[in-house]
Amino acid sequence: MKKSLLITIGALLLFASCQNLSQKGVLVNNIDELNKSIKEASPGDEIILANGTWKDVQIKFYGIGTKEQPISLRAETPGEVFIEGQSYLHLGGENLLVSGLYFRNGYTPSSGIIRYKIGEDSVANHSTVTNCVIDGFTQPSRLTSDRWVEFYGRHNQMDHCYIAGKSNDGNTLMVYHTGNENTNNHHQIVYNYFGPRPRKGGPRGETVRMGNPQMTPGYVNVSNNFFDACNGEVEIVSDKADYNTFRNNIFYKCEGSLVLRHANYGTVDGNIFIGGDDSPFYGGIRIVNTGHWITNNYFYKIRGEEFRSPIALMNGIPNSILNRYKQVTDAVIAYNTWVDCKSPWQLGVGQNRASAGVLPASEIRSLPPIRTTLANNLIYNTKEDASPIAKHDEIDGILFKNNILDNNGSVYSDYGVLRNEHVAMKRVNEWLYAPLESQNLFLDDTFAGYDFKRIEKDLFGDSRAEKSRVGAINNLTTAEGFVIDKKKYGPDWYSTDKVPTVPNMLSATSAAGELAKTIASAKSGDIIDLSDEVYLLDAPLKIDKEITLRRKGENKAQLIYKGAANTPAFEMNPKGIIKLDNISIKGEKNQLAFAPLAENMSSAYYLFLNNCDIDGFDYVLRASKGSFADSITVSNSNIQNCNNGIVLAADEKGDYNAEMVTFENCKFTNIGQNVINFYRGGYDESTIGGYLRVLDSSFEKCGSSEKSGQLLKTRGIINVDISGNTFRNNQVKLIALLWGEKNNHHSENVVTNSGIIKVEQQLKLDILY
Amino acid sequence: MKKSLLITIGALLLFASCQNLSQKGVLVNNIDELNKSIKEASPGDEIILANGTWKDVQIKFYGIGTKEQPISLRAETPGEVFIEGQSYLHLGGENLLVSGLYFRNGYTPSSGIIRYKIGEDSVANHSTVTNCVIDGFTQPSRLTSDRWVEFYGRHNQMDHCYIAGKSNDGNTLMVYHTGNENTNNHHQIVYNYFGPRPRKGGPRGETVRMGNPQMTPGYVNVSNNFFDACNGEVEIVSDKADYNTFRNNIFYKCEGSLVLRHANYGTVDGNIFIGGDDSPFYGGIRIVNTGHWITNNYFYKIRGEEFRSPIALMNGIPNSILNRYKQVTDAVIAYNTWVDCKSPWQLGVGQNRASAGVLPASEIRSLPPIRTTLANNLIYNTKEDASPIAKHDEIDGILFKNNILDNNGSVYSDYGVLRNEHVAMKRVNEWLYAPLESQNLFLDDTFAGYDFKRIEKDLFGDSRAEKSRVGAINNLTTAEGFVIDKKKYGPDWYSTDKVPTVPNMLSATSAAGELAKTIASAKSGDIIDLSDEVYLLDAPLKIDKEITLRRKGENKAQLIYKGAANTPAFEMNPKGIIKLDNISIKGEKNQLAFAPLAENMSSAYYLFLNNCDIDGFDYVLRASKGSFADSITVSNSNIQNCNNGIVLAADEKGDYNAEMVTFENCKFTNIGQNVINFYRGGYDESTIGGYLRVLDSSFEKCGSSEKSGQLLKTRGIINVDISGNTFRNNQVKLIALLWGEKNNHHSENVVTNSGIIKVEQQLKLDILY
Repeated sequence: MKKSLLITIGALLLFASCQNLSQKGVLVNNIDELNKSIKEASPGDEIILANGTWKDVQIKFYGIGTKEQPISLRAETPGEVFIEGQSYLHLGGENLLVSGLYFRNGYTPSSGIIRYKIGEDSVANHSTVTNCVIDGFTQPSRLTSDRWVEFYGRHNQMDHCYIAGKSNDGNTLMVYHTGNENTNNHHQIVYNYFGPRPRKGGPRGETVRMGNPQMTPGYVNVSNNFFDACNGEVEIVSDKADYNTFRNNIFYKCEGSLVLRHANYGTVDGNIFIGGDDSPFYGGIRIVNTGHWITNNYFYKIRGEEFRSPIALMNGIPNSILNRYKQVTDAVIAYNTWVDCKSPWQLGVGQNRASAGVLPASEIRSLPPIRTTLANNLIYNTKEDASPIAKHDEIDGILFKNNILDNNGSVYSDYGVLRNEHVAMKRVNEWLYAPLESQNLFLDDTFAGYDFKRIEKDLFGDSRAEKSRVGAINNLTTAEGFVIDKKKYGPDWYSTDKVPTVPNMLSATSAAGELAKTIASAKSGDIIDLSDEVYLLDAPLKIDKEITLRRKGENKAQLIYKGAANTPAFEMNPKGIIKLDNISIKGEKNQLAFAPLAENMSSAYYLFLNNCDIDGFDYVLRASKGSFADSITVSNSNIQNCNNGIVLAADEKGDYNAEMVTFENCKFTNIGQNVINFYRGGYDESTIGGYLRVLDSSFEKCGSSEKSGQLLKTRGIINVDISGNTFRNNQVKLIALLWGEKNNHHSENVVTNSGIIKVEQQLKLDILY
Repeated sequence: MKKSLLITIGALLLFASCQNLSQKGVLVNNIDELNKSIKEASPGDEIILANGTWKDVQIKFYGIGTKEQPISLRAETPGEVFIEGQSYLHLGGENLLVSGLYFRNGYTPSSGIIRYKIGEDSVANHSTVTNCVIDGFTQPSRLTSDRWVEFYGRHNQMDHCYIAGKSNDGNTLMVYHTGNENTNNHHQIVYNYFGPRPRKGGPRGETVRMGNPQMTPGYVNVSNNFFDACNGEVEIVSDKADYNTFRNNIFYKCEGSLVLRHANYGTVDGNIFIGGDDSPFYGGIRIVNTGHWITNNYFYKIRGEEFRSPIALMNGIPNSILNRYKQVTDAVIAYNTWVDCKSPWQLGVGQNRASAGVLPASEIRSLPPIRTTLANNLIYNTKEDASPIAKHDEIDGILFKNNILDNNGSVYSDYGVLRNEHVAMKRVNEWLYAPLESQNLFLDDTFAGYDFKRIEKDLFGDSRAEKSRVGAINNLTTAEGFVIDKKKYGPDWYSTDKVPTVPNMLSATSAAGELAKTIASAKSGDIIDLSDEVYLLDAPLKIDKEITLRRKGENKAQLIYKGAANTPAFEMNPKGIIKLDNISIKGEKNQLAFAPLAENMSSAYYLFLNNCDIDGFDYVLRASKGSFADSITVSNSNIQNCNNGIVLAADEKGDYNAEMVTFENCKFTNIGQNVINFYRGGYDESTIGGYLRVLDSSFEKCGSSEKSGQLLKTRGIINVDISGNTFRNNQVKLIALLWGEKNNHHSENVVTNSGIIKVEQQLKLDILY
């Protein structure tokens, strides 16, 4: 009797308490009500943002909750509270909890969108943001810098958020370590979905970055996140603080690496890097500094080289200044698996003694890794890799133990540090191979290096205590049961599965304004057939989505541009993608064929031209400052009678105006100057872009007004290939001046009365840092 | 009945177990028996070294003990096992315990005497050396480098040891941090007595050093040690690793500082620094880098300046290379007390923008401290200090809060960061002052900076929870009960209290050989009266202890040196101290008056001459390479008719041949060259020695054969004072070339026909690192 009474009272108390809690929730409808509620909030209170669009709301959420009774700020319905316009959410205080918000159609007027700090005296601690989305909340100009998530304080968390589409300057998520109140911070960044971040062109495009080159303790935990096509720059994750952990993340087709840059004692365990055949830029893990443990990671078809290689152990600089390269020491790389990667082990990356003539001594990376162990790893190739190891410097500072290579039957014996074995693997799914149980694989005698006992589990969480195989996977059965469950990442109310749309097939006649209208009303991806032969355009065609214009049949459609001077026939807007096929564009000597907006190019644009003619313009393409073309591909086309060709040379300081530029089987005739001028100003050796390919094309009577005396200008561009072309009667001294030290090449060109192609091994540039 | 039976059985078991343990002890009498025992030892075993002298024993003590059952190596009777000759003790394995050994009369043939590592593969962990002595176990040559204690591995301990008398190159105790097996090591260095370490002259004379400039985690605990006259160099303790703790140590009359050099996040709490009026070199705490907490420390009569100031916050170098100076950031200096110190707060020490012309940019310390807090401190002076703060650069990066100054009634208002108050103090003992309880001293509102809650206790362990006064001492009663108990430090069997000896008063006639014999048989400190007027010496007098020679009465005793060419009348040996009073020394132009041994000058020598004549020699004094004079003081004396004067110029690379050199009221006549040549080669800005004072003396007809054209040569010497002298008819261009940037001065000299004294503000020297 007594007992049941107590239970009843307990239940009543519990009920009363829940009631009480839920009664403390207050629905707010506008910023004034919100601010009032924030001001009055006490522990346990819940502030509920009413569904709908909140425009231009700059929320300073300050409060002191308790661990048991946080102060909450949440969407009435998760995903149905849209934060738009010039908005942000800054947090300060203790034990705050935010959930369910959706940032879109706007940008922050501050340094950050979600910031765990309000002002100098008000950081947040023990506070969490969960279940939110930031999608495309990017600055109007790519050159304007911000961060989307700024961590300050200690013990803060972001989980189950979706963040994608940042195309402007600045890391997506930054953890600040400056000041005692921000060090030793133990932040948790878990179960988020970092969606696509487009190629930015230049530095400061990381998705996650921690700290400065000051070597402060972090203990940040970045685990169980999904990184999807995070292509902002060569570093997806840039770790510049100590004692951080990266565990069980998936890096899916990311054109960059997880980089332990100024970090020490990092733990990188159980991550999966999935690449593919479709890009040579997918990256792995790059290591600088001391004491990192790289264990149980799995790499599939990671084909990046050097800075983006599957595993890059960098060379250091003797007595380096703080922001350059300390030597790699005391690293452990154990129990990892590489499947069908290209030269997965790159040792001494960045060794550049040959540049001693053009770089100061303080830039020369001459110290190879030391006191470093590579043990119990597995490299498996279904096709032979000619060089599983790329050795850039001495490797006698590395201890190699029990590493197995199955090179599809070929024996690879360079350096004598890999044991060639046949390994029976089961292909579990498209990207996952796991060894069959039947074979030994050092089960009896895997190498036990110093402190290896801390490697307790394998990639999928199976214990290594009883048996421990080389490679990341200890147990076939568990591997067979593994699937990537995208529902684990990001908000439960937001699907990252994009529904593929079917393009509409449209057409436009040459009636005045019809083409422009058709484009304006088309949806992205639509295909417009040009049904007539000649189109007069008296104003630029605005391209702010993906549009294909094509002409069926033999003859090209002719677009004759009659617009104002100094305007382009095609005005490329952010996210504009134009695909032209079988089209001729004719203009006048004061017009441009293509140009991005003069400003506010918040996102990249794309040009794809096939079987086209461009004739008579001042410029074929002229980039504006801050604009960025992700890809420019021109094939089977004629470019002729223009004052200038393709000019991508508006930016400075490491930024540049296009990533992938390709001309294939084109014919350039009578282009006065700047036939191609692709430029990156300033030397920042960690940015490795700019790709120009000029293949199987011809250049004739070009460069007659070129002051530089150089036909194809590629200064500062890292990757250039000029091959199979014909140069005839171009009045220049140089066809090109290539940078031999970098990835600049030429071959099989036929040159008649056109100067020469010169290769300068070392190029002297201003250093940016 | 039952109960008492159980107790009985328990007692029996306990007894049996003790028996068993003690039965496992084995007494060894020589190195072979020792090696055999080491080889056979198992957990719980005790190897006992028989009393007596063990000569040339190179002990490699390897074993795997357990925490409960360590393997022990101990003296039969603590302090009665003497390790002599070329010997060492190296440890490797786990859970070893060494105690009671006495190292003396020898030196190590290896890098270390006590080393927690045997070979590359064999470091010691969880091992302890206790209750041992290393006294004067120094290398024959000061230039030979070793360390006396070398920590490797993890979780090792040294406690209750006495270590003194190292005069050769190299730190006394070094903690190595290279390699994962040596980082995060948590060593305990506690309750040791670090006895006198003489001035070394040049770098690498630290008493305790941790790590390299690589910023590795240490967690070393250096607590409750006594540092007595550790004068090796400007750094007594050089901390170059992270997260180390220095607590409750006593620094007694140490001419250097506890320096957080390449360390970060150091804790320096509750230490006592006792100086005095007898030296201007006693130092305090010097801070570089980030995140240090300096709390509850007490400083008494610390009069060092700049690098040795009571608290020195250094300036940093922008983007410093690893081995230079990072900016001070995020430091907290709170609840400390300074009593009768000179300019206790030195802010921006090392600022050297003015040297930009002679030093590379990478040496210019232009970054003052930032994000740094000085709060709740107390400065108390019984005599006014004209400048309690020495401001070397901007201080707006420092937060000053609730700091109290009692400047003996004077108001000091520079920079407005100290609050002038009358503080009633009780003098508890010679060096300890504590505030009376009656006054407020911010009891109600001491500043609570970020994370100040970690400052839980005061200097003497009293809680700060209830009340918290400014300064190191929270409670007068506890302070009144505090005494320094030297028995806490070092071995229990070894007394550090030196019994003062009374000198014997001896005399020697001029009978052939009598003086030499008398000196040879004297004990250190004895005084020998020269009873005759003329002494013919046909061989050098060997001085290897403290000897005073004097002549009573008006006339000087004449020592006429008839020894071989190129030999000295006085041969200075290690630890030789000669004091001459009222003596004339006459020699020939191929002899030396004074000279140290040509080699194996393992320890410093001293010269004190008063009322003497030196006449007719080739050299008055010629230093040999590696020799070091701690002090040379010549007063009221005539130095004449010699080819060379005092030449202290045999070393290079930052080492130099004497520390304190003084001439007062002396008369130099007809010295051909090198009248004074005091030289330090190479620039090492953290070495701040060489002191030359030339006061109230006269120089006449000197320098006639001086090739440099310079009378007094002081190149590279940091401290020079040339004042009140008369220079007449010296055929030189320069009397001296002084280094204006350093502590070089001249005043009130009268110069006739003798060139000039020139001051060069910035001197360009080779940088040593």
